Amino acid sequence: MTASNVYQFQPGGFADHRTPLIMNCWYVAATSSEVSRNIISRRLLGTDVALYRTLGGEAIAVRNRCPHRSFPLAKGRLVGDTLICGYHGMQFDPSGRCSHMPSMPITPYNASVRSFPVVELGPLVWIWMGEANLADVSQIPNTHWLDDPAWTSVSGAFHMKSDYVSMHENLLDQTHFPFLHPGAIGTPEFARSKLTVRQEGEVIIIDRELKNSSPPGVYAMPTGLTGKPVHRYSEARFASPALHTAFAKIVDPQPTSGAQAEFRFNITHAFTPESHGSIHYWWFNSRNFKLDDQDSDVFLHTASAKAYLEDVDALEWIWEVVQNDNQPQFDLNFAPDKPGLLMRRVIHERAAAEAGVSL
Amino acid sequence: MTASNVYQFQPGGFADHRTPLIMNCWYVAATSSEVSRNIISRRLLGTDVALYRTLGGEAIAVRNRCPHRSFPLAKGRLVGDTLICGYHGMQFDPSGRCSHMPSMPITPYNASVRSFPVVELGPLVWIWMGEANLADVSQIPNTHWLDDPAWTSVSGAFHMKSDYVSMHENLLDQTHFPFLHPGAIGTPEFARSKLTVRQEGEVIIIDRELKNSSPPGVYAMPTGLTGKPVHRYSEARFASPALHTAFAKIVDPQPTSGAQAEFRFNITHAFTPESHGSIHYWWFNSRNFKLDDQDSDVFLHTASAKAYLEDVDALEWIWEVVQNDNQPQFDLNFAPDKPGLLMRRVIHERAAAEAGVSL
Amino acid sequence: MTASNVYQFQPGGFADHRTPLIMNCWYVAATSSEVSRNIISRRLLGTDVALYRTLGGEAIAVRNRCPHRSFPLAKGRLVGDTLICGYHGMQFDPSGRCSHMPSMPITPYNASVRSFPVVELGPLVWIWMGEANLADVSQIPNTHWLDDPAWTSVSGAFHMKSDYVSMHENLLDQTHFPFLHPGAIGTPEFARSKLTVRQEGEVIIIDRELKNSSPPGVYAMPTGLTGKPVHRYSEARFASPALHTAFAKIVDPQPTSGAQAEFRFNITHAFTPESHGSIHYWWFNSRNFKLDDQDSDVFLHTASAKAYLEDVDALEWIWEVVQNDNQPQFDLNFAPDKPGLLMRRVIHERAAAEAGVSL
Repeated sequence: MTASNVYQFQPGGFADHRTPLIMNCWYVAATSSEVSRNIISRRLLGTDVALYRTLGGEAIAVRNRCPHRSFPLAKGRLVGDTLICGYHGMQFDPSGRCSHMPSMPITPYNASVRSFPVVELGPLVWIWMGEANLADVSQIPNTHWLDDPAWTSVSGAFHMKSDYVSMHENLLDQTHFPFLHPGAIGTPEFARSKLTVRQEGEVIIIDRELKNSSPPGVYAMPTGLTGKPVHRYSEARFASPALHTAFAKIVDPQPTSGAQAEFRFNITHAFTPESHGSIHYWWFNSRNFKLDDQDSDVFLHTASAKAYLEDVDALEWIWEVVQNDNQPQFDLNFAPDKPGLLMRRVIHERAAAEAGVSL
Repeated sequence: MTASNVYQFQPGGFADHRTPLIMNCWYVAATSSEVSRNIISRRLLGTDVALYRTLGGEAIAVRNRCPHRSFPLAKGRLVGDTLICGYHGMQFDPSGRCSHMPSMPITPYNASVRSFPVVELGPLVWIWMGEANLADVSQIPNTHWLDDPAWTSVSGAFHMKSDYVSMHENLLDQTHFPFLHPGAIGTPEFARSKLTVRQEGEVIIIDRELKNSSPPGVYAMPTGLTGKPVHRYSEARFASPALHTAFAKIVDPQPTSGAQAEFRFNITHAFTPESHGSIHYWWFNSRNFKLDDQDSDVFLHTASAKAYLEDVDALEWIWEVVQNDNQPQFDLNFAPDKPGLLMRRVIHERAAAEAGVSL
Repeated sequence: MTASNVYQFQPGGFADHRTPLIMNCWYVAATSSEVSRNIISRRLLGTDVALYRTLGGEAIAVRNRCPHRSFPLAKGRLVGDTLICGYHGMQFDPSGRCSHMPSMPITPYNASVRSFPVVELGPLVWIWMGEANLADVSQIPNTHWLDDPAWTSVSGAFHMKSDYVSMHENLLDQTHFPFLHPGAIGTPEFARSKLTVRQEGEVIIIDRELKNSSPPGVYAMPTGLTGKPVHRYSEARFASPALHTAFAKIVDPQPTSGAQAEFRFNITHAFTPESHGSIHYWWFNSRNFKLDDQDSDVFLHTASAKAYLEDVDALEWIWEVVQNDNQPQFDLNFAPDKPGLLMRRVIHERAAAEAGVSL
């Protein structure tokens, strides 16, 4: 990570693509279904991690590098709960401690591979890559709807070449909806609707409401309210460097007798820098109605995947420009960029604190 | 451009592949037919440029990077003469000035994207990437034959991985003809023919003449003088860092009664560094006879493309050697290398002047 | 070779993948059959070399870069014993001296391309890339069995992305056999068998013997001793930075009347860094029995190629880990790593001496 070596923290600065990654934070390492008895490797925050499950079902993450001769442990094999290196047969228990070295008469119990704290919540496996003594499970932001029988979700994943700061800024910014997503959530009225921004600690929250307006395509079909004036409330939340959540509520002010009047959509964007310039990204579109309706599933999956791909494309194009342009520029900022700038300040301050820099 | 960061100008030095690119010069950005209502992007001298045409037909070049959030403007769209960014809908007029920002109540008229002076001459769209106040259209070298009804041309283009200094040297050097182009223009007599070199300001000109010799393949067929002793005059000209032109004249000293006695070929090599180590290259082979003869067109196009591809291959191989060899060497220079060395001195001095270095 | 620029020699240190390459050593440049009247190029120790054979059959190696304008000489052609550059026709004799420059009235006899000492021994063409006055043919380690009628060989080659220090360590280390090569030479008894390590000058030798044990698969079939208790002796030898040799002897303590009681296998691993991080590797499995037995040839070729590919895979995976991991680690060392560490000290000391660093 050459970028971080030369990064200079400025008082009052904003994080950008060069800012050192935040280590002391819970990130999503994988979805639950990706972690199994087949060991996989994944680069997270610049470090290769081997992920597997014990016989008892517990997700385990260790550094994907044998401490003896750097063989990638994900190329080894599992015997019971023991991970066996494929080069010299060095064995590690789920805590990362060496439990046997075949070529040695006595086991070097002091040898170990670094293991990472892991917590599995619903469909997400969270990992802590920072200082082990700071790992506090209560800091994982709430995503209960992903594992709540009152909700159902469609989901997808991308691997994208971009930086996660720009990704957070994209998600906090709704003024791009009409231009980048003209067919979906982007109605011009919404882009100009009333916006409030607030910061609670290191969480940035923006609220919008728009009354008596036709719902955009992505909400109209599942709710069955196409063309009808509705009230629309949305909250977008920079929950942590690893997570953005959005909560949309569509209210039908004059529901047909007996019909449902309130419809909620919770959107989850979990993403983890692979390293500077690439991201593992998982999205979930959850709703609290029509739980078993396959037509809504198909519609919402298709519409979401299309819109998020538009974001992915845009962010990858921007990343390419930023990387290749030999005349760097300072971004112009406008009033609607405030939520993104608040987020970039939070990340900048956290990165500075981790680097031991006083601003 | 790491290379240029460490480049050290030496008094009396010669430019090479590491020399900082000359910015204050007109370069070809594209051919006329490439610039249309579909915005294209092209990297020129290390900077991404978006190119399009107004409704009135004027070619426009702006930096391919929105000043707001670095979205590549070539991924946006045109409405009339307005370029609209695809991310937040920021609008720019052909001068690069912002004319509307949808998320803002008032237009930020001070915001702008850098636009580049552009001049269209015949089939070539010239661009000025340097200091705007130095852009002087009269400095564009003459290529009138590309747009003159008394002439006709065949043409082609290459994108090549090489440096433009070596490319200029190749074009000023005719001693490689018999070896790199044995079937075409390379006759041994020509390589040893009388040569004069002169410098006029920053233009290097070499003249050769060879009397009473059979014309080489590439000239013999179109003139119909195969095997007949002719006089051959040629001028090769380093016209600017962006352009090499060559003028060949074949004279039949004893023309058949009533037949044409003088045949002229003007060759245009326009090329622009994409960045250090890659080049956009356009060539034109123009003649002032048999204007409508399709056989001559096909023959000259085939023969030219073959010969220029031989140069492209050689220059790409050399570039690979120069890049990969970990034991750099100083080139040996021989007397016939003089034209190339004069050119390399001119480029070295211009680059030093642009860098503010006194030699 | 950025890596070597920043390498710091430490007293008592061990070579690793970043250690500057040893230049003053004979390396294998090619097999004899690769060198012919068709000029080939190959990168050896970071330098491109052109290899060809004279009409008289002598192998010639010169730098693959014309001293005039850096054209790769391997793209030129041979006329008799003269190498002719493909750009300006500059001619070089087998010593590298210029014998003609077509564009010049007199030959620049002082011009030359660097030639490298080459010695052909059996199927191997050895090259000396270091200081010419230190080239001493007697330093080429013995591989007489590759060219001895009492022996026969099967062989193969790999181009691998790894570092040659790890490759040497792999070859000196037999404790990985049961894990990386479980089907072939890797019996658990062997991994725990008696081992002696000794150093003779800059040569590291390890001996193992294992008595009254069934031979592993790779030796059992050719000797016809499957399942029979035999004595097994092996010597593995770090012969030079360019060569590892291994000598295995299988002794049948109770041979059937008249049957052969002793079987020898000599294994040759010749490998040359292409540059830091990639290796040209040639292996030979030689035996002094059943010289004309094609079944043994096929069996030994298949078994050897499989085992060496397992090593190549492992070393490439490790190289990937070492290159990509942004948290470098110091390897844990165990007692069985001693032979490898002795070798790494030898290479470290030779590299320091070549760099003029006193430890």
